[in-house]
Amino acid sequence: MSPTAPQRAPLHDPRARGFASDNQAGVHPQVLHALARANGGHQGGYGADAYTAALGEACRAHFGAHAQVYPVFNGTGANVVALDLLTERWDAVVCARSAHINTDECGAPEKLAGIKLVPVASPDGKLTPALLEAAARGRGDEHHAQARVVSLTQSTELGTVYDVGELAAVAARAHSLGMSVHLDGARLANAAAALGVSLGALTTDVGVDVLSFGGTKNGLLGAEAVIVLDPKVVSRPLFVRKLTAQLASKMRFLSVQLLTLLEDDLWLRSARQANEAAALLAAAVREMDGVSITREPHANAVFATLPPAVTARLRDRFPFYVWDEATGEVRWMCAFDTTAADVTAFAAAVREELAGRR
Amino acid sequence: MSPTAPQRAPLHDPRARGFASDNQAGVHPQVLHALARANGGHQGGYGADAYTAALGEACRAHFGAHAQVYPVFNGTGANVVALDLLTERWDAVVCARSAHINTDECGAPEKLAGIKLVPVASPDGKLTPALLEAAARGRGDEHHAQARVVSLTQSTELGTVYDVGELAAVAARAHSLGMSVHLDGARLANAAAALGVSLGALTTDVGVDVLSFGGTKNGLLGAEAVIVLDPKVVSRPLFVRKLTAQLASKMRFLSVQLLTLLEDDLWLRSARQANEAAALLAAAVREMDGVSITREPHANAVFATLPPAVTARLRDRFPFYVWDEATGEVRWMCAFDTTAADVTAFAAAVREELAGRR
Amino acid sequence: MSPTAPQRAPLHDPRARGFASDNQAGVHPQVLHALARANGGHQGGYGADAYTAALGEACRAHFGAHAQVYPVFNGTGANVVALDLLTERWDAVVCARSAHINTDECGAPEKLAGIKLVPVASPDGKLTPALLEAAARGRGDEHHAQARVVSLTQSTELGTVYDVGELAAVAARAHSLGMSVHLDGARLANAAAALGVSLGALTTDVGVDVLSFGGTKNGLLGAEAVIVLDPKVVSRPLFVRKLTAQLASKMRFLSVQLLTLLEDDLWLRSARQANEAAALLAAAVREMDGVSITREPHANAVFATLPPAVTARLRDRFPFYVWDEATGEVRWMCAFDTTAADVTAFAAAVREELAGRR
Amino acid sequence: MSPTAPQRAPLHDPRARGFASDNQAGVHPQVLHALARANGGHQGGYGADAYTAALGEACRAHFGAHAQVYPVFNGTGANVVALDLLTERWDAVVCARSAHINTDECGAPEKLAGIKLVPVASPDGKLTPALLEAAARGRGDEHHAQARVVSLTQSTELGTVYDVGELAAVAARAHSLGMSVHLDGARLANAAAALGVSLGALTTDVGVDVLSFGGTKNGLLGAEAVIVLDPKVVSRPLFVRKLTAQLASKMRFLSVQLLTLLEDDLWLRSARQANEAAALLAAAVREMDGVSITREPHANAVFATLPPAVTARLRDRFPFYVWDEATGEVRWMCAFDTTAADVTAFAAAVREELAGRR
Repeated sequence: MSPTAPQRAPLHDPRARGFASDNQAGVHPQVLHALARANGGHQGGYGADAYTAALGEACRAHFGAHAQVYPVFNGTGANVVALDLLTERWDAVVCARSAHINTDECGAPEKLAGIKLVPVASPDGKLTPALLEAAARGRGDEHHAQARVVSLTQSTELGTVYDVGELAAVAARAHSLGMSVHLDGARLANAAAALGVSLGALTTDVGVDVLSFGGTKNGLLGAEAVIVLDPKVVSRPLFVRKLTAQLASKMRFLSVQLLTLLEDDLWLRSARQANEAAALLAAAVREMDGVSITREPHANAVFATLPPAVTARLRDRFPFYVWDEATGEVRWMCAFDTTAADVTAFAAAVREELAGRR
Repeated sequence: MSPTAPQRAPLHDPRARGFASDNQAGVHPQVLHALARANGGHQGGYGADAYTAALGEACRAHFGAHAQVYPVFNGTGANVVALDLLTERWDAVVCARSAHINTDECGAPEKLAGIKLVPVASPDGKLTPALLEAAARGRGDEHHAQARVVSLTQSTELGTVYDVGELAAVAARAHSLGMSVHLDGARLANAAAALGVSLGALTTDVGVDVLSFGGTKNGLLGAEAVIVLDPKVVSRPLFVRKLTAQLASKMRFLSVQLLTLLEDDLWLRSARQANEAAALLAAAVREMDGVSITREPHANAVFATLPPAVTARLRDRFPFYVWDEATGEVRWMCAFDTTAADVTAFAAAVREELAGRR
Repeated sequence: MSPTAPQRAPLHDPRARGFASDNQAGVHPQVLHALARANGGHQGGYGADAYTAALGEACRAHFGAHAQVYPVFNGTGANVVALDLLTERWDAVVCARSAHINTDECGAPEKLAGIKLVPVASPDGKLTPALLEAAARGRGDEHHAQARVVSLTQSTELGTVYDVGELAAVAARAHSLGMSVHLDGARLANAAAALGVSLGALTTDVGVDVLSFGGTKNGLLGAEAVIVLDPKVVSRPLFVRKLTAQLASKMRFLSVQLLTLLEDDLWLRSARQANEAAALLAAAVREMDGVSITREPHANAVFATLPPAVTARLRDRFPFYVWDEATGEVRWMCAFDTTAADVTAFAAAVREELAGRR
Repeated sequence: MSPTAPQRAPLHDPRARGFASDNQAGVHPQVLHALARANGGHQGGYGADAYTAALGEACRAHFGAHAQVYPVFNGTGANVVALDLLTERWDAVVCARSAHINTDECGAPEKLAGIKLVPVASPDGKLTPALLEAAARGRGDEHHAQARVVSLTQSTELGTVYDVGELAAVAARAHSLGMSVHLDGARLANAAAALGVSLGALTTDVGVDVLSFGGTKNGLLGAEAVIVLDPKVVSRPLFVRKLTAQLASKMRFLSVQLLTLLEDDLWLRSARQANEAAALLAAAVREMDGVSITREPHANAVFATLPPAVTARLRDRFPFYVWDEATGEVRWMCAFDTTAADVTAFAAAVREELAGRR
């Protein structure tokens, strides 16, 4: 390194831990190594590089021979590209009301691509064939945006997980209605780890057409992918990615992250660690007087209620979100790097603050 | 590192060099170091981290006390966010016909944000007060999209550089017409290096309102920034960035790249190396029989014509783009890591292929 | 008339009557006369004519001194222009799930203007302060589209009518939340006639900011208006109307229709006739065995269930819509020209088909 | 008529004449008669009526057996629907810089449908195969919006007319480039009248795929049509019209206007009168000292320069537009109802004001 490049100390405390979101964690060391490995020399831009080619192979291994992968920058970008690929201008997308595309993307699907969402109330964040069918009325009538896609989330924003049969049933009904199936898999790895099945078993095998595959929440620096599982249902994904401002020039550095995640089961090991931390946390607080687990933790999130004053003091010590101001429900999210010691420390803090509750 | 994380060899040849684009280069080693430094522990997402705060300070140092910085993923994203911030629904943006927003973003400004572009023919890629004024007709008439923004590019897609006076003149005319000034600075560093002036001298000081500040083409892994120089002319940039799918959750890793670029003059050293390589290359080929430099190289691009058969053989040895199929004009772009040896090797290849010309 | 202009017979049966929609009726004779009156000579285009000026005066008389009127072509156009006027790019619009903008405009708000809708379940089609407040969460958070407008419909798609106090309460809550109030008044005249109040009492006086004022369903050939009641909350309506393709060149012919509707209480006489026909119809069928009125008819619509086979035979004789295939609920809509004799004939047909029911 | 419907006097002077635009004229008497004929009784909405069916037949007679007609409200609406039908999200539309879609629709194509325009400089407002080809570069490259449609205007905004061969040549080149052909025919009737050919000869026969057929500027109250000449190149026009807010509920009143225009050569008689008035006007002023005809009048527009002070005084007497403030060029537009006496009166005024010139 040149003499003008000083070794600097971190600006932050690398020991700080929290339960706010799996995207507050950093980068898995293997991924940083992989970025360095992909560096050096000149490589074709926009995907014409060896790492993107290798990622294509890895995706075919996981998702089937027809899978096509399009790395993008973030989850909102992946979802907008995926939904845009699956819709014509007059179409609508059915989703759970709690879906990220409906609640946490500042309207990006509507505002970037003019996509109409049809949100459906669902207490556990999951859609069913019956809910889908009720929302998909008015086919063929020019007055109605045409329900053309169902967008599912796995694991859901509420920490629940569709089992294989549930996914297959919704997808089958969608297809029988002439609809396509999008899966927002920002936390697909956590769901697969929880169910003990492969990534393909939750996607290609159950009839998902296009997948938003998450990496950032599972230890990447920043990379997601639109994975087209049924190329017959989309056209010109390269163009849609570009016009959505999701085409990376130095794509090798997105691709190598995703490649690393898919190789050697890094995706599984990381997701499993996050899930196990959540299970540990749920077990640790479940019996505490004043804490009530509100949703059975299937993946890496724990939802609970506790007294507001306790919540307030606890948040001074560990970052986490209040999920519902009205009910006092909180969300504790574990990450790929959450350790048993982190959970123990946090559970102790919960116990202390409960003891001092007002 | 865990035993399951094998040390892998690169999939590509780290010695490969080309002249296709400065985004075919990799990452400056200081930037990779900085990414590692920012890793570890949990940090607030979406900009609530120490590196983004430090980047804010660095931007104020370079661009003035009012500068506000919003890291984004890529250049198209930066431009769409910037233009969206500066326009109402009925507005239009005047730009050179050769501008990246007009020719190389697959219509993203129109398609993502409904922005009407008013492209203006300009042989050297630069706008002038007179060109701007001619394009800004019809103010106040509901039939015409209102020319509300001028978007300049520095350095231009044609390798030319506005000097400080030229920029100031266009910006002053824009302001007197009630328009705002956007600068697409994907290669701002190259322009500043070429002119020997500061970044602020080319932006804040001449009246630029919002800047797309480029990093990826100057040695970052992937990070650009929308820098608002006059906060009075925009509203709610946080929302616009989010709805444009350009909000990174793990923003510390974008911010630390940009911070590294702005510290210790890394931006300047890298840009200078690219510019010097281009000057060297121009000098090396200028006198070759059969090569004609078509535009005076101001920054890191060399444009030239040479016999098509020579071009074809040369491209088998080094990647570069044919800029204009009709005239046979080619573009040779130098990067932050292009060495004198690279230029010498390439110039030798040009000479060889010219010698064997048909 | 010139000899080359033959007198032709109508292509349709002018005696045909139905209960499908108030937009299947024709044009009130006064309106046709008014169109002829406005004909001849050259008049300024795009609103620079005497009839548009007179309409402005008439609107101020009905809606208050600040009212500004912008004639448009149809209801979807009025709603898109109105909502676009009231929203920034990051905003959302809260509405009843049954609202026309959500169910019957093929996604035009989303697709033309990128407006995110937040539909709220409401059995009677009406919103309340509590429903509004629950839907307006997340203010100030860049991840959420900002609930900035509430869109109410009067009378609702379900034939119900907000009373003055209900409207005022929702509008007051909206304003206290920093939101604006849009009223889709495609059938505002019917609501005002039903309540026996003025048009201003249901709009300006209760705090509506922008009104979509309906004319076509109340006997016009084809004209609606965006009426801005509080000009402080909008900017550049002329431009928004134009860019939404809702600016008529020969605007005098839209304006004179609306002017005629507002003069001499034509709006009230026509709406009252439609409402009275609906009341008559409800009374006539209410006691029939096999018919069940499902919603109390407040305005000009009657909703009822009857045996599917009866419905099918009845629709062979009179056009009307099945509102809900699942429940067999039908909608019978009366128009400005529906007569007592029309109702009597239809009620007799209902009785006959019920008698022959399978 | 009821006693409450007073006979009112017109608010305007029916003898007023001008040369500002053919849309400042009123409605042809035959059209008003036809509107009355279509009135009365209930008719199916949204096109399910006898007049729309008859219009379909009339269009097939004029434009060929495959023609499909979709009435819309205005020219901007027709153009946006037509271009939206012909484009995918990643496509661009090549047009003359002077095209209405580029200069006079406040960006509606971009803002409503995200369509990128590629404007081409053309002194006479006409495109040629060579101009088209130069603008259609970059096919297949994801960085470029794909030039997929050429939009021609007939007659052009500059009063010029493509002859049959010119149109056929551009259309053939477009098709050979894999592009579709849109014709903005707001004044198609004037062009056909000028050339003495049928409407089909200028559209279907030369390879136009989708036509915006103008009626309002040729004596209708307000009606245009999207006419699909090659149904293979579009999908779901009913949906696109609806979502563009261009679907009329009482469509019989749009359709009967267009039907009347196409029957008995009303389109031709009206256009011919306007063209003849323009020719008369050109002849009357051509030799006046101080007047210079700037473009040969092919259809119903006369472009000329005259001294600014003369223009100013003349505009106090007759409305017309200054076309180019820089050069002092004015546009005099004749309408379906412009008489020889109108022209004589105007020419006399020109002579008088020239005589008094400063």
